[in-house]
Amino acid sequence: MAMDHAAAEGDHLAAERAAARFDVEAMKVAWAGSRHAVDVADRMARLVASDPVFRKDNRTMLSRKDLFKDTLRKAAHAWKRIVELRLTEEEASLLRQYVDQPGYVDLHWGMFVPAIKGQGTEEQQKKWLPLAYKFQIIGCYAQTELGHGSNVQGLETTATFDPKTDGFVIHSPTLTSSKWWPGGLGKASTHAVVYARLITEGKDYGIHGFIVQLRSLEDHSPLPGVTLGDIGGKFGSGAYNSMDNGVLRFDHVRIPRDQMLMRLSQVTREGKYVNSDVPKQLLYGTMVYVRQSIVADASKALSRAVCIAVRYSAIRKQFGSQDGGPETQVLNYRTQQSRLFPLLASAYAFRFVGDWLNWLYTDVTQKLEAKDYSTLQEAHACTAGLKAVTTSATADAIEECRKLCGGHGYLNSSGLPELFAVYVPACTYEGDNVVLLLQVARILMKTVSQLTSGKQPVGTMAYMGKVQHLMQSKCAVKTGTHSVHLYLFQAS
Amino acid sequence: MAMDHAAAEGDHLAAERAAARFDVEAMKVAWAGSRHAVDVADRMARLVASDPVFRKDNRTMLSRKDLFKDTLRKAAHAWKRIVELRLTEEEASLLRQYVDQPGYVDLHWGMFVPAIKGQGTEEQQKKWLPLAYKFQIIGCYAQTELGHGSNVQGLETTATFDPKTDGFVIHSPTLTSSKWWPGGLGKASTHAVVYARLITEGKDYGIHGFIVQLRSLEDHSPLPGVTLGDIGGKFGSGAYNSMDNGVLRFDHVRIPRDQMLMRLSQVTREGKYVNSDVPKQLLYGTMVYVRQSIVADASKALSRAVCIAVRYSAIRKQFGSQDGGPETQVLNYRTQQSRLFPLLASAYAFRFVGDWLNWLYTDVTQKLEAKDYSTLQEAHACTAGLKAVTTSATADAIEECRKLCGGHGYLNSSGLPELFAVYVPACTYEGDNVVLLLQVARILMKTVSQLTSGKQPVGTMAYMGKVQHLMQSKCAVKTGTHSVHLYLFQAS
Repeated sequence: MAMDHAAAEGDHLAAERAAARFDVEAMKVAWAGSRHAVDVADRMARLVASDPVFRKDNRTMLSRKDLFKDTLRKAAHAWKRIVELRLTEEEASLLRQYVDQPGYVDLHWGMFVPAIKGQGTEEQQKKWLPLAYKFQIIGCYAQTELGHGSNVQGLETTATFDPKTDGFVIHSPTLTSSKWWPGGLGKASTHAVVYARLITEGKDYGIHGFIVQLRSLEDHSPLPGVTLGDIGGKFGSGAYNSMDNGVLRFDHVRIPRDQMLMRLSQVTREGKYVNSDVPKQLLYGTMVYVRQSIVADASKALSRAVCIAVRYSAIRKQFGSQDGGPETQVLNYRTQQSRLFPLLASAYAFRFVGDWLNWLYTDVTQKLEAKDYSTLQEAHACTAGLKAVTTSATADAIEECRKLCGGHGYLNSSGLPELFAVYVPACTYEGDNVVLLLQVARILMKTVSQLTSGKQPVGTMAYMGKVQHLMQSKCAVKTGTHSVHLYLFQAS
Repeated sequence: MAMDHAAAEGDHLAAERAAARFDVEAMKVAWAGSRHAVDVADRMARLVASDPVFRKDNRTMLSRKDLFKDTLRKAAHAWKRIVELRLTEEEASLLRQYVDQPGYVDLHWGMFVPAIKGQGTEEQQKKWLPLAYKFQIIGCYAQTELGHGSNVQGLETTATFDPKTDGFVIHSPTLTSSKWWPGGLGKASTHAVVYARLITEGKDYGIHGFIVQLRSLEDHSPLPGVTLGDIGGKFGSGAYNSMDNGVLRFDHVRIPRDQMLMRLSQVTREGKYVNSDVPKQLLYGTMVYVRQSIVADASKALSRAVCIAVRYSAIRKQFGSQDGGPETQVLNYRTQQSRLFPLLASAYAFRFVGDWLNWLYTDVTQKLEAKDYSTLQEAHACTAGLKAVTTSATADAIEECRKLCGGHGYLNSSGLPELFAVYVPACTYEGDNVVLLLQVARILMKTVSQLTSGKQPVGTMAYMGKVQHLMQSKCAVKTGTHSVHLYLFQAS
């Protein structure tokens, strides 16, 4: 680390920056993906930073109620700016990202709209999406129940078809069947995609999605038979306390039949359950999409934490002074470097593996549309495994960055406590990491067990097909190259 | 784990408890240390639980200001009850422990009073301790500065002797010399023990402690030359936000000469610096005491987290149902057990190693009083190392327990987010864990390098003296006993 004239004068970051031995502008472009991406990101970041409505400095100091109001205000203002400035979808998404405050809008755009797009018929999409696009309705995604998270097939909420009224009766039969956690449910949403056991002609057809109105479009009060509320405070001072995660119970709430999401299967006027010809595997495509975006987000969260810790380590000095001279920058201690630099490297690694997963998603989607399911399992294993590995590593790394800032990392003003508290649920949502790793292990074991049957593993698992060869290989390598390293990984 | 009749009816904890294969009452006594300790703890816990002033249910929902007021109210009420009920010191300490809300009182009793006891002359103790005991003054411990934490010798605040006025001038010469972090400083304290560089006759004698009045005893306003404030929000919703960690700057504040803590060294009327005949090693005794109490506290924090996670794991069911039957308690999954049970075991291990450290403290104190310093370094290494190991393990374990409760662990109502946020600074305060482990490593390396000089290592390092023998030993053991395991640890 540089210890030159500028550093001696106290302007440590300038000295460190001047000592960079790579092209910073080129790295910016590599990180963002293109010069265009750098420019758009800069523009949107400035737009948010210069707008007093989007201020963040008081976020950890507001009461829960004021924090929630602040979220409503920011969401409405963001929407206003997006419309006024005619922002593209890319720009709007970046703007929301820089506002950086969890809120009901995330679920409306990130879960409610995609659920209708992915699982609704064209007719249903035509009816509901324009309402959602114009915010005439606000939607959330009501899947998890008090007693059922990872085991989606164990959900207890029922949707029983009633041929007399040509509709479904949505009901919460037990305490554990209460919907629990959906963001946007507690205060904001007027509608939800509710996941429930479809029962028709006395038979249970398992979990299906239904569009259910929860609150009046007149006065926002809960509709008859609907009980809902906010589930209370969460980790951190601000963090997800800006989100109205909610609880929801149904007492025999009736909805018309056409509010079942019917792209993959239907219930007829007579109550017959019918599968459509749309392959169910398409649903996996959505899961792959969501998880690859979580991997991409890991690098964003990690890079912010590492940035704070690296800058702090350059400024902070401790010990090592001789004869009353300046102390040593903590960045120059090996104990600091050995903890910090691998995290810095991980931020870059996660950034580029996120790109690769995005390519994998595009690839698997194209194959699915051509009814080629050959790479689906491998893509599922890659996204599940990388989701688990990157989110766990990132959560731990943010906490490590916090500790690397010593006592100062414990103050909210360092930004790190909130970064941790707002990030760490990523280890649990969209597939608990331990459950996901077990799924990956199962797929790996299954692939190994099928080797003798002549079934050739694909993609990242293709090397297993060479197991005989690899196990007999001996290493005569004297200098390391990329391909040698890869070969050694495969063989080990 | 038990899956019997009671479990089928939903009363899982009763079934689990009935299945215990050890004597629970005997374990309670072993944990507390004695039957007497169990009874006192039960009595104090009930006293706190039954008193509405000590309520905890709204702690994470109060604004920072209301939370601080709540802390003042609880501290005053605790004091009133301690006096009314004529509680013993043991009882009073337990009562404060069960109130379980960080506050200025912790520093008054835990740092200010002990500093005067340990570093003040008998005369100084006679003057200041009665004022502190009756809360006529409130004290804090102002050591850490904005720019100086681990490197205490680098503190910049100066205390310059002025023979004209027979007093010291306390001054903050730089921004980085601002006192930063002291608990109780931001709002509550009237006095502080301030650590500053003693300068007399133009010479810098290094860091010494001084009793400095900060605020008026009439209207609590800062005295002339004293600038102070609260350093802002910290990790968590409640946690240490109940504490008024503060910032403090001095602009040439004068104090009388007799407010230097003079047990170990004095400045005479003429400005001469004189060491007393009290050995400086006594100060290490205090450090050993504080760190052994941190190890004891680790088991308390960890046992609370493990208790919540074990109970949750017994109640929570997920997957594993057959034909619509009840799902499996997550406590029965090996993936849950392999993460949870080592933490449960650690809670017990830390409890008992805490007892041993307490014995070590008593032993080293007795030796110090007899001017025997032979075991001081080893005792320092044990407490520094165990402080680092147990606090890091406990902080990580609380977070792991939180994750073991799935999504529910993210809600404040689980108790775990706050338990983590309030515990984790233990990794940083009273010696940053990384710095402490480096100190242990240095002592170990030094001990090894001295082996050839014939200097025999003592206590837990005694086995190093047998290094020649151990390295030539071969293991012929067939069954493991305690002494065999110990021998193997020594040899490995």
